[in-house]
Amino acid sequence: MALIVQKYGGTSVASTDRIKAVAERVAHYRNKGDQVVVVVSAMSGVTDKLISMAKEMNAMPAEREMDMLLATGEQTTIALAAMALHAMDIPAASLTGAQAGITTDGVHSKAKIKNITPEQVHALLDQGNVVIVAGFQGRTTEGQITTLGRGGSDLTAIAMASALKADLCQIYTDVDGVYSADPRIVHNAKKMDRISYDEMLELASSGAKVMQSRSVEFAKKFGVVFEVRSSLNHHPGTIVQESTPNMENVVVRGVSLDKNQAKVTLEKVPDHPGVAASIFKPLSESAVNVDMIVQNVSHAHGERATDLSFTVEKTDLAKATKILAELRKNIGYQEINTNENICKLSVVGVGMRSHSGVAAQLFEVLSETGVNILMISTSEIKISVVIECVQGEVALKAAHASFVS
Amino acid sequence: MALIVQKYGGTSVASTDRIKAVAERVAHYRNKGDQVVVVVSAMSGVTDKLISMAKEMNAMPAEREMDMLLATGEQTTIALAAMALHAMDIPAASLTGAQAGITTDGVHSKAKIKNITPEQVHALLDQGNVVIVAGFQGRTTEGQITTLGRGGSDLTAIAMASALKADLCQIYTDVDGVYSADPRIVHNAKKMDRISYDEMLELASSGAKVMQSRSVEFAKKFGVVFEVRSSLNHHPGTIVQESTPNMENVVVRGVSLDKNQAKVTLEKVPDHPGVAASIFKPLSESAVNVDMIVQNVSHAHGERATDLSFTVEKTDLAKATKILAELRKNIGYQEINTNENICKLSVVGVGMRSHSGVAAQLFEVLSETGVNILMISTSEIKISVVIECVQGEVALKAAHASFVS
Repeated sequence: MALIVQKYGGTSVASTDRIKAVAERVAHYRNKGDQVVVVVSAMSGVTDKLISMAKEMNAMPAEREMDMLLATGEQTTIALAAMALHAMDIPAASLTGAQAGITTDGVHSKAKIKNITPEQVHALLDQGNVVIVAGFQGRTTEGQITTLGRGGSDLTAIAMASALKADLCQIYTDVDGVYSADPRIVHNAKKMDRISYDEMLELASSGAKVMQSRSVEFAKKFGVVFEVRSSLNHHPGTIVQESTPNMENVVVRGVSLDKNQAKVTLEKVPDHPGVAASIFKPLSESAVNVDMIVQNVSHAHGERATDLSFTVEKTDLAKATKILAELRKNIGYQEINTNENICKLSVVGVGMRSHSGVAAQLFEVLSETGVNILMISTSEIKISVVIECVQGEVALKAAHASFVS
Repeated sequence: MALIVQKYGGTSVASTDRIKAVAERVAHYRNKGDQVVVVVSAMSGVTDKLISMAKEMNAMPAEREMDMLLATGEQTTIALAAMALHAMDIPAASLTGAQAGITTDGVHSKAKIKNITPEQVHALLDQGNVVIVAGFQGRTTEGQITTLGRGGSDLTAIAMASALKADLCQIYTDVDGVYSADPRIVHNAKKMDRISYDEMLELASSGAKVMQSRSVEFAKKFGVVFEVRSSLNHHPGTIVQESTPNMENVVVRGVSLDKNQAKVTLEKVPDHPGVAASIFKPLSESAVNVDMIVQNVSHAHGERATDLSFTVEKTDLAKATKILAELRKNIGYQEINTNENICKLSVVGVGMRSHSGVAAQLFEVLSETGVNILMISTSEIKISVVIECVQGEVALKAAHASFVS
């Protein structure tokens, strides 16, 4: 008898029929003799509808009240899911995040889980129930309702699996697992059987958004092995776990393409200590997420000046340029250039640690494909290049063919 | 500075615009310097929608899960109402029933309030907030979410007013107050300024469903004076309070007509001890609500037998006759007659206690109007008669003209 935590996202519980399908899957495990804890999101569309009602009341709704409002979304799903299981004669009971003992800090709308005291979950499991827990939500020690922000339900599932010392944690989604590249672009992309936390993290931050990084980070920190799989079929998915020596035999696990980046270049930035901080601190304070940063030493400028390029999410570009324009005097750069027509290609694999030549191979492949590289950034297990977006898919296919196929 | 508890029902918060109107009314009191606690229901239509989703999952959804599901309705309203107040620069915070300290027994779907520990309400009031509490819901000492059943939000408001020792409790609804008769039928019906708990109870049980009896009973028990008034205008409503000697000067406070009753007659019931229990206990166990009971001694029967008539709600008639048919051998009655085309006319007033002749006056008025009386039942402050329904409105107008106008 295994203890399994299963998480179903919004599209997997999008309708009463989809919830019934979830109940059937849960029943399948339950009838094998497993104990099952189910974490569910709000039915897809519900959260958006609640947000639009909130905006009708108040253009800037208070985060405490948004949490109060949005928490009703998962609470609805858990009750309906329990009813669906009862209709199949499976004992089941629902718990809100608060009832399941998920205690968070008090940062409304993006709370962090502090600890989980799952007494009620254990008690209900011991009575033979499937326990259905509302994802995405918790409570402070003072009893305030909080939500965990984007990817919160995944986090609930992984944290709950950790607290319960579950044998298995399954993240159900609308894809079959994690692929070596986006299968909509690279048709012979392979579903991976296993991937390490670090590879998953690098792929996530490179645009392969199967899961938010924070959930993977949490799983890595607490050693929670989980499986990403589809709620639409019964194919095995991708196991995400600590890397093993065996994994390092594969140099490149996957390639990814992020089309949501834009490039900003500040020309002739005075080259003195503290200038980088004067640029990136204000951006970070305004919640502009800066990804790659490259400082190009430019001998042409004569004085001690340099060109500095970085990428931000496209949606943050207007905000970033506004902030930088206001800071122009302070920073003392000469000109600002932006380019929205770029994308970021990344090659990821823990095997890179022990294999050299990956960068060289990537540059060669891109050169043969006629792709011009605008920026380069490397980490221990990833090489990323910024290229013209119009060449993105061609480059992705070429890199995949060279490294994975 | 007064402490006011205001309750707004489903139609008063039916849309985001209606919630804004509620916020404006709350702001009006707040800006006068009053402390305000607002109790709200689910937006009208929401509860029905949730019930229909539940029925799609399970024809007989578990009551624990129904409570989990339905509690989201008020939770949505409280958050939206707080946002609306914030938009008017009024500090406000929402609390679920559980957070507001409303502790109930564990009878899901019709829980009783055991006690209220409103520490959070006090703390938020002390910080200068309008406090918005979800009506209709509470929690058990074990942390289970419960709902209070029909009229539950009124009960929340009155119980909260009692626990907070509020100066004023206002029940906002879609009528201007309690009338001497249904103004849709009796056009010169008068809105009453004051009415006693007992009169309100007798009127409620006689079909004037401004409020459920249980809330009025709770208010009477704990001495909570409340006002029933409209959320659509600023007219003063009707104050409901303990009767005063002054009130008894008015013999008849109001007249009411209940069209939802049906009459059942069992003919030739053996007249021996225990026979009434053998009839009414099974009905009560099946939750059939019996109202008037009249035992007509019939000299015609020869043996010790009697005719027994009583009224039940029309919706319970089929269930009642089925139960009685099954019990026919046990009870030993000869025949069962039912009549759905009846209604109940009631004349109510605390002044009856000290004034005689009310019954005689009623019978005379009905006789002059050509109305035939089928059953009579009296209490200390009420006289009810069952008549043919086709004559109901004529009889109501005549009684109102005789006693009130």
